[in-house]
Amino acid sequence: MTDLVLRPIGRVESVLRDRADAPRQGDEGAPDAWLDLDGQYAPALDGLLPGAQVLVLTWLDRADRDTLAVRPRGAADRAVTGVFQTRSPDRPNPIGLHRVTVTAVEGTRVRVAPLEALDGTPVLDLKPVLGGVDDR
Amino acid sequence: MTDLVLRPIGRVESVLRDRADAPRQGDEGAPDAWLDLDGQYAPALDGLLPGAQVLVLTWLDRADRDTLAVRPRGAADRAVTGVFQTRSPDRPNPIGLHRVTVTAVEGTRVRVAPLEALDGTPVLDLKPVLGGVDDR
Repeated sequence: MTDLVLRPIGRVESVLRDRADAPRQGDEGAPDAWLDLDGQYAPALDGLLPGAQVLVLTWLDRADRDTLAVRPRGAADRAVTGVFQTRSPDRPNPIGLHRVTVTAVEGTRVRVAPLEALDGTPVLDLKPVLGGVDDR
Repeated sequence: MTDLVLRPIGRVESVLRDRADAPRQGDEGAPDAWLDLDGQYAPALDGLLPGAQVLVLTWLDRADRDTLAVRPRGAADRAVTGVFQTRSPDRPNPIGLHRVTVTAVEGTRVRVAPLEALDGTPVLDLKPVLGGVDDR
């Protein structure tokens, strides 16, 4: 059995510096960003080309992991919702899930857009979008 | 900064017992399964109802984390692809991403379908599907 310790594969390089600047989701005006991956992961990127639709998984390292309920945007006064019914970064395992388009690949640096993750955010994984599973 | 150690929020209860039995993706004949969450996470489930479309994140604990390239199904002989271009469970951070429908909620037990994760698989997170982000 694998342990439950994540291995960051790289970091986000972005103009977004703190949570107050960041849009809540990538489709709300998030910028382009670089995924700067460690060189050891070059074989894992084999086949990745500009234009690819990719799911990027990140570790939202400025999140509060003890938050279990939040007041979402647009909710009625004092209405709270369980975090598993929101996309809040504050949750027990703050894994960010970002659907992006790859715009450039330079060695183990991957340019993507749009990405609402902050500068320095650890990157955990890239997965291809599968139409039958992710879009149904 | 949060550490990089995951906190399992519960486990999968499924008739699928090993990798040889499991379909590759949920839309390939995967069964219904229970997510048996720890009681402490009840507030995080607040608002979850049958019919909800949810992304379940799991920790694929029988994966090989040192695999960086694989030979996908249907690929030409000897063609290998970087794992970041596949949905193979074998990857540096074996986080499973499963789009499911909630069919029942009983306390902190959540029935979902379809789910290709194996019995005993740690559950990490539930997120609502967002049409604008996940389906575009």
